[in-house]
Amino acid sequence: MFPQDIIRKKRDGSSLSREEIEIFVEGVVSGAFAKYQSSALLMAIYLNGMTARETGWLTAAMMKSGEVIDLSHIGLPKADKHSTGGIGDKVSLILAPLAASAGLCVPMISGRGLGHTGGTLDKLEAIPGFSVQQDTPQFKQQLAEIGVAMIGQTAALVPADRELYALRDVTATVSCIPLICASIMSKKLAEGTDSLVLDVKYGVGAFMKTPQLARELAEAMVAIGKEMDRTTVAFLTAMNQPLGRKCGNALEVVESIECLKGEGPADLMEVVLTLASQMMVCGGLSECREEAEGILRQKIESGQALELFRKMVQAQGGDSRVIDDYGILPIASEIVDVVYVGKDGFVNEVHALKIGHALMALGAGRESVDSGIDLAVGISDLVKVGEPVTGGAVLCRIHINRQESLTGAEKLVREAIKVETEAPQPEKLIFDFIS
Amino acid sequence: MFPQDIIRKKRDGSSLSREEIEIFVEGVVSGAFAKYQSSALLMAIYLNGMTARETGWLTAAMMKSGEVIDLSHIGLPKADKHSTGGIGDKVSLILAPLAASAGLCVPMISGRGLGHTGGTLDKLEAIPGFSVQQDTPQFKQQLAEIGVAMIGQTAALVPADRELYALRDVTATVSCIPLICASIMSKKLAEGTDSLVLDVKYGVGAFMKTPQLARELAEAMVAIGKEMDRTTVAFLTAMNQPLGRKCGNALEVVESIECLKGEGPADLMEVVLTLASQMMVCGGLSECREEAEGILRQKIESGQALELFRKMVQAQGGDSRVIDDYGILPIASEIVDVVYVGKDGFVNEVHALKIGHALMALGAGRESVDSGIDLAVGISDLVKVGEPVTGGAVLCRIHINRQESLTGAEKLVREAIKVETEAPQPEKLIFDFIS
Repeated sequence: MFPQDIIRKKRDGSSLSREEIEIFVEGVVSGAFAKYQSSALLMAIYLNGMTARETGWLTAAMMKSGEVIDLSHIGLPKADKHSTGGIGDKVSLILAPLAASAGLCVPMISGRGLGHTGGTLDKLEAIPGFSVQQDTPQFKQQLAEIGVAMIGQTAALVPADRELYALRDVTATVSCIPLICASIMSKKLAEGTDSLVLDVKYGVGAFMKTPQLARELAEAMVAIGKEMDRTTVAFLTAMNQPLGRKCGNALEVVESIECLKGEGPADLMEVVLTLASQMMVCGGLSECREEAEGILRQKIESGQALELFRKMVQAQGGDSRVIDDYGILPIASEIVDVVYVGKDGFVNEVHALKIGHALMALGAGRESVDSGIDLAVGISDLVKVGEPVTGGAVLCRIHINRQESLTGAEKLVREAIKVETEAPQPEKLIFDFIS
Repeated sequence: MFPQDIIRKKRDGSSLSREEIEIFVEGVVSGAFAKYQSSALLMAIYLNGMTARETGWLTAAMMKSGEVIDLSHIGLPKADKHSTGGIGDKVSLILAPLAASAGLCVPMISGRGLGHTGGTLDKLEAIPGFSVQQDTPQFKQQLAEIGVAMIGQTAALVPADRELYALRDVTATVSCIPLICASIMSKKLAEGTDSLVLDVKYGVGAFMKTPQLARELAEAMVAIGKEMDRTTVAFLTAMNQPLGRKCGNALEVVESIECLKGEGPADLMEVVLTLASQMMVCGGLSECREEAEGILRQKIESGQALELFRKMVQAQGGDSRVIDDYGILPIASEIVDVVYVGKDGFVNEVHALKIGHALMALGAGRESVDSGIDLAVGISDLVKVGEPVTGGAVLCRIHINRQESLTGAEKLVREAIKVETEAPQPEKLIFDFIS
C-alpha cells in the first residue's frame, strides 16, 4: 500500500483501518511517509475528521512508535494528570508532590509553553539548577525512591509525536481534536501511568472556547484512555480568568510553594485538590473525593507535601533553599503597581487571554518553538473576579525587565480587568466531570 | 505572511487573494513554501475548492513562474489543441501537421502518458530517431520554418507546474478541477499560442466520467483562457470506447499515418476534423467549421498534410521512411487473434477503461512516472460499437512481447467487448461545444 492510497482514503472521507494508521505512523518515523505526504494526510484528517476508533488507533500507534516505560517495579498505584493549558495554570507543580506525599507514584512528563500558555518545564527551570532532562533509568529510579518526578519528554518516547507536531505547527493543522487527543494521550500513556486525570479547560484563555467544545475533547480523550485499559477521567474547568494571583514562570513557582505551605489562593487550591483527590480515587487510595481531599489537606498542613517538593527539587539538581528564600529565583528589575482609578465597584472580568497577551509582551512566553523566554517577568497580586475595588486600589503588579515592554503590557492588563458597580454572578470553576 | 497563514485561510474555506496565490506559487519555486506546506495547501484546495477567479490567478502565477514563449515573429495565426486524454487518442499526431498544412502555426507542447492514457510524446518516440526535446530557440525556429513542432515541456517553461505536479502525484491531490485547469492552461498559455481548442473527454475511459463533470472542467478552462485574453473553446467528446482501431504507441503512429493518407477510421477522423476545423475558425482562416473541414479534407487528399508530417519527422531527427514502411517501427514478437465464439450479434460495448487495463497488462503504459514502456505492444483491428459480428470473427489482434502478459490482457479484452443480439443506439461522439 502506497502512502497516497491512505491519503486518498481519508481525502474521500472514509475511515482508515488500524493497519493503515499503523503504516502511517511507522512511515512517519521511518521516512517511508515523506513529510509532504504526512502533511497532506494531516490536512485531510483536519478537514474530514477521525472517528473515536481511528483516534484510538492513532494514539496506540504513536505510543508504540517509541519506548513505553514500564513502572511495574514500583508497588504504588501510578497516577498522573494533564491539563490542556491556561493562564496562570501551575497546578502540576503543587499537585505532583502533594499526590506523591499521599502515597501515589506520579510519573509526570510535561511540555514547554508555546504562546501565552505557560509550560510546566519552563516554570520548574526557574528554580536554579533544576533539571528536567532525565533518561528513562534515572526517571524510574527517582520514582522508585521518592514517588514523583517531573521531566520533559525523553528522546526515546513517542518519536512520531515529535515529527508530527513539528509538521502540524507549520502546516496549520494544530487545532484538530483527533490530532490533539492522540498527541496528548500517546505521551501520557507511554510514561507508564495506570490512571490519568484530565483537566480540560474552556473559556477565553483556553484552547477550547466553550464547555461544549471542551466536553467533546474530554470525551474523546477519556474514550482513548479506556480503550487502552487505563483509568481515564476528565474535569471541565473554567479558564476565563487566570488561575491564582501570579502569572509568569518564577512568580508561579512562588505561588506553588505558597500553596504547598497552605497559603494558596482559593481558586487554585480548588483545582489542585479536586484533581489530586480524583487521582487518589483512581489509584484506589480513597473511596471518594471527599475522603481523599481530607487526606491531602492534612498532607499540606503537616508539611509532608512541601517536604516531598523539597526532595524532588533536590533529586533533580535544584536549589531547594528556594522554599524559604524566593529571592534565589530570577527577579525582575522593576515592579510596577497598576492602580485602579475609576468608580468603586466589583471586578467583573479578568480576561485571561488579554493577560496572556500582556505576559507575551513582557517576554514571559515563547513566540515560537525556538525563542527564549524571560523567567523573571510576569504579573502578581492580580485581583480576582467578584472582588470589590475602590479608587487607588492595586489591580496587579507588573514585573518587568525591559522598560519598553511596560506600556503595552499595562494597556493589555487594564483592558483585561473590567470593574462594574454590580458584583458579577459567581462562576463555577469545576464545571463537569466525565468518566 | 507565513505559508501557514495562507494554508489556514484555505483550510477554513476562504478564497485566497491574488497576492496570496502569487506568494504560494513563487514560494513553490523558490522553496519559501516547503514541500510539506505546499502539499497541505493542495489538500485544502482539493477539499475546499477554488473559485474561478482564484483558479485564473493560480494559472497566471504558474505561467509567469517561468519563460513565456513569444511567437510574434511568426506571421501565421497560432493555434493549439489539448485533450484531457483517453484510450487510443492519437488525435494530436494527425491534427498538428494537418492544421499546419492548412496555414496555421501549431506550437504543440505535450506530455507523456501515465497509467492507461497514452502520451503524445511516447507515441512520437516510437518513430526511430524522433526527438521531443528542444530548447526554446530550436522550437521557435522549427515553427518559423515549417509551422509545426511537437515537443515535451522545456525546463524553462512553468517550473511551478513541475514541482506541483510531482507533489500532487504522491499526495492524492491530482483529481481536482482547479488544479487540473491551472496545470493544463498555464502550460498551454506559456507556449505562445493565440487560441486553444480543448477536447474534454467524458465516459468510462476518461478522467471525467459524465458529460456534466466534463462540462464543469471545460467551462473552467474556457473561462481561464478568456481571462488571459486567448481565444479558448472546448468540445465535450465521448470516451466510452477507444478512439480508432489501434491502441499502443507504435500502432497508433501507424493509424495516424493512415489517417493522413486518407485511410483513417471514421470516429477518429470525426474528432480530428472537428477540432482542426475549429482551430481554423479560431485562427481566422475560415468563416465556419464546414468551410474549414472542406479545406482540411483537401489537404489530406492532396497529400500536403502527410508531406508536412514528413517534414516534421525529419526536422525532429526522426526516420521519415516510416511513412512508407511501418516495419521500421518497434514490432511485437507475436500477434494473437482474439476470436469471437458466441451467437451472432452486434458489438454493444468496447469498454475503454478495460482496454486501457489490457494495454497496461501488455506493458504499453506507465505504472509510475519513472517506469519504462514497451512501444511495440498493443491492440489492433479492434471492433467498433455497432458493428455486426458472427462466430469466428476476429474481435481484435493483440500484439505481445511477453507470453505471460497474454492471458491477462486477453481476459480484459474479452470482458471489454460485449456482443448482444440487438444493435445498440448510436452514441454521439461530439457531445457539445463550449465557447
